[in-house]
Amino acid sequence: MSTPSALLIADLAGVAVFAASGASAAIVKRLDLFGVIFVGFVAALGGGIVRDVVIGAVPPLAFADWRYAITAAVASGATFWLHPQFSRLRWTVLLLDAAGLALITVTGTLKALNAGLPPVGACLAGMITGIGGGVGRDLLLGEIPVVLRREIYAVASLAGAVLVAVLVRFGIHDGLALVAPAVLIFGIRIIALLRSWSAPVPPEPA
Amino acid sequence: MSTPSALLIADLAGVAVFAASGASAAIVKRLDLFGVIFVGFVAALGGGIVRDVVIGAVPPLAFADWRYAITAAVASGATFWLHPQFSRLRWTVLLLDAAGLALITVTGTLKALNAGLPPVGACLAGMITGIGGGVGRDLLLGEIPVVLRREIYAVASLAGAVLVAVLVRFGIHDGLALVAPAVLIFGIRIIALLRSWSAPVPPEPA
Amino acid sequence: MSTPSALLIADLAGVAVFAASGASAAIVKRLDLFGVIFVGFVAALGGGIVRDVVIGAVPPLAFADWRYAITAAVASGATFWLHPQFSRLRWTVLLLDAAGLALITVTGTLKALNAGLPPVGACLAGMITGIGGGVGRDLLLGEIPVVLRREIYAVASLAGAVLVAVLVRFGIHDGLALVAPAVLIFGIRIIALLRSWSAPVPPEPA
Repeated sequence: MSTPSALLIADLAGVAVFAASGASAAIVKRLDLFGVIFVGFVAALGGGIVRDVVIGAVPPLAFADWRYAITAAVASGATFWLHPQFSRLRWTVLLLDAAGLALITVTGTLKALNAGLPPVGACLAGMITGIGGGVGRDLLLGEIPVVLRREIYAVASLAGAVLVAVLVRFGIHDGLALVAPAVLIFGIRIIALLRSWSAPVPPEPA
Repeated sequence: MSTPSALLIADLAGVAVFAASGASAAIVKRLDLFGVIFVGFVAALGGGIVRDVVIGAVPPLAFADWRYAITAAVASGATFWLHPQFSRLRWTVLLLDAAGLALITVTGTLKALNAGLPPVGACLAGMITGIGGGVGRDLLLGEIPVVLRREIYAVASLAGAVLVAVLVRFGIHDGLALVAPAVLIFGIRIIALLRSWSAPVPPEPA
Repeated sequence: MSTPSALLIADLAGVAVFAASGASAAIVKRLDLFGVIFVGFVAALGGGIVRDVVIGAVPPLAFADWRYAITAAVASGATFWLHPQFSRLRWTVLLLDAAGLALITVTGTLKALNAGLPPVGACLAGMITGIGGGVGRDLLLGEIPVVLRREIYAVASLAGAVLVAVLVRFGIHDGLALVAPAVLIFGIRIIALLRSWSAPVPPEPA
């Protein structure tokens, strides 16, 4: 298999995982089939759409390549009918989600750097690619985004984005710039889950 | 009357109807006059703004042509002062809203196709033009968007967008590509209202 | 000090104030450190990001110039650790916020006019630059945006934006087009606070 098609398949796998997470959350809120698919679409593709708009790559990939939209719709629809089985797969879903976060952050940061964004902006754009879909999902469902409230999730994404920018700065453009940050994000995320790490919260009012 | 000015008037009529719907919802939430006009503006023009940003047509029409913003503001302001009369007009409003959805979806899809989006992306962009304003309205008012919860609304819009894309694919660019999908959307929407059709919801947890 | 660097420092001061306001609101909602910084970032830079996307100036300044993102992050982080002191500074914060609104609206409107937007669109874009961050902050925190509910805030911003457009229309491009509208916004805002002015709300249902 050529590298581009391997990357595409990995990318679509990330889209499917994020769509399933969005669809699951929408099912809990008792949305109808259309709502479940729409929230799945936003969860899977919303972060990338924001990144593409911000870097001027319009139309965004979600609109320019039908495989992304169809993958998100099929994964969301499948979740609609199969979701009772999913609760037995909690750790599988969390592992896939961590892998999706790793992949989508790294490719998002590289895409922003290639579009000419300076390092700080590219790291922000990469992190937004990773967490933006989840923020959109929670807003549509009337929740304060979970990524802002607890768990090490966005910080893992940001750490990986910074590592991408540093490696590229030192002229490392090959597979290492892709793999090392992805492993870092995946590792932080999994250890945070295993140890229930959280970011600090404000002190209780006296 | 020339076709472009007929289209413009129809377009502005759709904007006015959507603005009135947004303003009505904001009044129910007891927003102030500015809030009512702002929500009316988002309900009327939000979908088109997102479409224009996604297809790279900046500045969006809502910013480039003052008639759109002024129409939305006047319709919202009028609703603020006249709304007690509106409750007697429920079916008039629903009919106008269905007509607005039909028109805005069809012109949105055509605009996306003309901007070079592939069919799947153009259908998505057309549907977002139709339903995006309502999603924005509900988010500003702290509600889970109604279009995701019940009723055949987005699906009518999507069906019309797909018909536009199919007709254009077969080389039909004249009035038929405009009228047939608009009739389809309007028809599905009205029948769904008359028969209280809804999209399926997830099964109750056991 | 040259005019550009004076403008930059004033701009960054506005960013810091808006970030502190966003961070304070996030602390009240008990978000974690990352959430506090993220909401501060959106409150400070969200309006400008929307404006830049709408006028086609991508990547937006918040991504293209690292000083904006870093200022927002540092101000939000400082608020996280120092916020108990802030409650004693209520009037200082309100004065700084009014100054931030004045400055950001005026520079936002000028930037939109320079990008070729017609006057009505440029006034809208300028107002969105001023109030957009606060709208984003409140949506992320699950609130109906305060700017839509009470107080003369958006209207002050809009009045200043209109004055900018009028002055530029009459060929006045020098410091006056910057200072007079800023003073107008700041003045309306402070008088509204002192007199507890509000925009009209809909009549109570009978």
